[in-house]
Amino acid sequence: MGKSAELICVGTELLMGQIVNTHGQFIAQALARQGILHYHQVVVGDNLGRLTATIRQALGRADMVILSGGLGPTQDDLTKEGVAAALGVPLRLRQEVWDGIVARFSRRGLEPTPNNRRQAELPEGAEPIRNPNGTAPGVLYELPPDARQVIICLPGPPNELRPMVRDFLEPYLDRWAGSERQVLMSRVLHICGIGESAVEHRVKDIMAAADNPTVAPYAKPGAVQLRMTVRANSPAEAEAALAPLEAQLRERLEPHIYGIDDETLEGAVGDLLRKSGRTLALGESCTGGMLGGRITDVPGSSDYFLFGAVTYANSAKIGVLGVPETDILAHGAVSAEVAMAMAAGARRVGGADIGIGVTGVAGPGGGSDEKPVGTVWLGLATPDGVWAKSTLWPGLRADIRWRATQEALVWLRSYLLFGAKAAAGV
Amino acid sequence: MGKSAELICVGTELLMGQIVNTHGQFIAQALARQGILHYHQVVVGDNLGRLTATIRQALGRADMVILSGGLGPTQDDLTKEGVAAALGVPLRLRQEVWDGIVARFSRRGLEPTPNNRRQAELPEGAEPIRNPNGTAPGVLYELPPDARQVIICLPGPPNELRPMVRDFLEPYLDRWAGSERQVLMSRVLHICGIGESAVEHRVKDIMAAADNPTVAPYAKPGAVQLRMTVRANSPAEAEAALAPLEAQLRERLEPHIYGIDDETLEGAVGDLLRKSGRTLALGESCTGGMLGGRITDVPGSSDYFLFGAVTYANSAKIGVLGVPETDILAHGAVSAEVAMAMAAGARRVGGADIGIGVTGVAGPGGGSDEKPVGTVWLGLATPDGVWAKSTLWPGLRADIRWRATQEALVWLRSYLLFGAKAAAGV
Repeated sequence: MGKSAELICVGTELLMGQIVNTHGQFIAQALARQGILHYHQVVVGDNLGRLTATIRQALGRADMVILSGGLGPTQDDLTKEGVAAALGVPLRLRQEVWDGIVARFSRRGLEPTPNNRRQAELPEGAEPIRNPNGTAPGVLYELPPDARQVIICLPGPPNELRPMVRDFLEPYLDRWAGSERQVLMSRVLHICGIGESAVEHRVKDIMAAADNPTVAPYAKPGAVQLRMTVRANSPAEAEAALAPLEAQLRERLEPHIYGIDDETLEGAVGDLLRKSGRTLALGESCTGGMLGGRITDVPGSSDYFLFGAVTYANSAKIGVLGVPETDILAHGAVSAEVAMAMAAGARRVGGADIGIGVTGVAGPGGGSDEKPVGTVWLGLATPDGVWAKSTLWPGLRADIRWRATQEALVWLRSYLLFGAKAAAGV
Repeated sequence: MGKSAELICVGTELLMGQIVNTHGQFIAQALARQGILHYHQVVVGDNLGRLTATIRQALGRADMVILSGGLGPTQDDLTKEGVAAALGVPLRLRQEVWDGIVARFSRRGLEPTPNNRRQAELPEGAEPIRNPNGTAPGVLYELPPDARQVIICLPGPPNELRPMVRDFLEPYLDRWAGSERQVLMSRVLHICGIGESAVEHRVKDIMAAADNPTVAPYAKPGAVQLRMTVRANSPAEAEAALAPLEAQLRERLEPHIYGIDDETLEGAVGDLLRKSGRTLALGESCTGGMLGGRITDVPGSSDYFLFGAVTYANSAKIGVLGVPETDILAHGAVSAEVAMAMAAGARRVGGADIGIGVTGVAGPGGGSDEKPVGTVWLGLATPDGVWAKSTLWPGLRADIRWRATQEALVWLRSYLLFGAKAAAGV
């Protein structure tokens, strides 16, 4: 067994659904990287009784309790009170922390309010954790003897918490876990151009036989993930167990695997463009720039991405991309002809090797019997030819727009990997 | 006191940080809308012992326990086993559910696997909840007598869970809570063009005096939120308590309030464009289409949004938007001159009333001493004149790009509301 940590996210705004709990994921990732076991996450509101009971329960079942949020200056911020109550120790003003807060305010020509004094109080026996981006320090409490258990409090604002996780928590976990850690390593294979059930069909015998590591599929809109997870005593042992499984899965699923872990489809397509020395231009209508936004999310995308035209109005389709007005009149703005003309126009105007056109009915309005909401036509213009394909997805405006960008990237990847025949055979 | 619900999100992938817990927010919002008290959310992995203990604990402190995830066909899917174990009842195959699964597969020309039979099993005494988008039905268990407590299980995939929350859970909550509900209503004011500390300074006396409803600030990149929260016995009573507080805050903060609750800055700007009968075109560089993506996220944005050019390459800036090559050579692509020329070019090419240009160094590469990563120049071209402004933010590529789109929308809003003088005085 390795050491375990439980995460408590404090904040009524989470329980009211006002914000999504991104800290839960962020800290869970840090725990997984460090091989710390993580069995429970709890969200609790700004209520001293429930918070204290939640901390006590966590201390009863985890070696480390991490709390996020509730370190602010207001009466709603009760995390330190909860820790002190759970441990049965008082809160004490720490003069050096208070001096730091005063200095921080004074650098900005301000004075702290009396409320800010609460931010200089720590449970007796705790140490402050430096917070370069905010007033409230974090809290480190190592239960005697020998830090058999540890409580760590981090501030709620993401721009304060995230650097503290990186600069304090992860190095601390690394030391604290020592040799006791049980590495829980996972690797995710990202798969496109094939559905979840087809993926499962191809690898079901591998999945059924896999025990440690395990394999689990996870479907996302327009993509499938296979997650391999292994428990081991060291990163090297984990790596050694994952490698042959990954090779097995790749053999069954290549060429549909576009990346692993944090790799993105836009990044994979970008690599293919860069390696092949080809450039890209876009003509977007229903996606309104989202496809360009995804492609340029990749650092260095200026190497291959030259130009995008968001031709929302028909006049822009005609004037900027040279889409023939007769095509729009004869077939409608959402049609194979217009998608191909947009792709070819983007390619020509942008001076790029490849052009993509996207035109569709994202809804909620604008649908018809012939072209219901969710209808999207994609065009692909290349030195080898120009093609169109259509798709129809259920869902809301945001889903349909996302799927359109996803499908365009999958199609482009297919062309870059396998050429004209693959691009046309859709 | 009203009735209370506890949410248990089941899935090791959450504890490993592989996905963010969006269900927590989505279901919390439904509970808040229906006036159901919500004190705890727990994430637990695919482990029968811990899952059963978590369900038992929730049954000990909440009137309703909602579980998400773990209804799939694999051995990892243990939610129904956990419910059955917590209640001490067996799982039973429900023939009509199994018939439905077989029919569902057969419509797609497939046969269910033996594993799918598990999806037709329910804890004895439970009823299936229709899931139109997936194989696994939900589970409704009303504890006798008289449904004094309720357990509801929903499938994990968002495209299955979300429609079931809307079509089943919310109407059920509405009936179940009856007159016992305590309405916890909140309203969020969205504020831009003024920082968090300035907002607090303007309203600190109101915040200090507010008890029920309360007021709490929340800072986001490029925006501030003020959340008012009230507990009341009816929606009408809650509304009556919120209205005067909102009026007080508006008096202090107008015109910086751009919307409430789900309203977005892009939606607010869209409304202003529509009402004023003006149209918009964009020239984007570092944002790569993200600004167009945000603007067209609004249904009906084709009423005012005509055209966007994503001119990543200098050749596209020159060729498509008519940016003078001499400006790029003399001042660089990230400069006031180029931002203004992009705005003016987008306006002209798109045939729009207003043009916006965005050019910056999003990083991680490309920075210099003079123009470090985070430098963004915005241009605004209108019938009243053309202006530029620059900003510099810390942060990562994604943050900088987001802030650039935010700042462009805030600036455009200011021009639409107050005209040339406000737009120029920056």
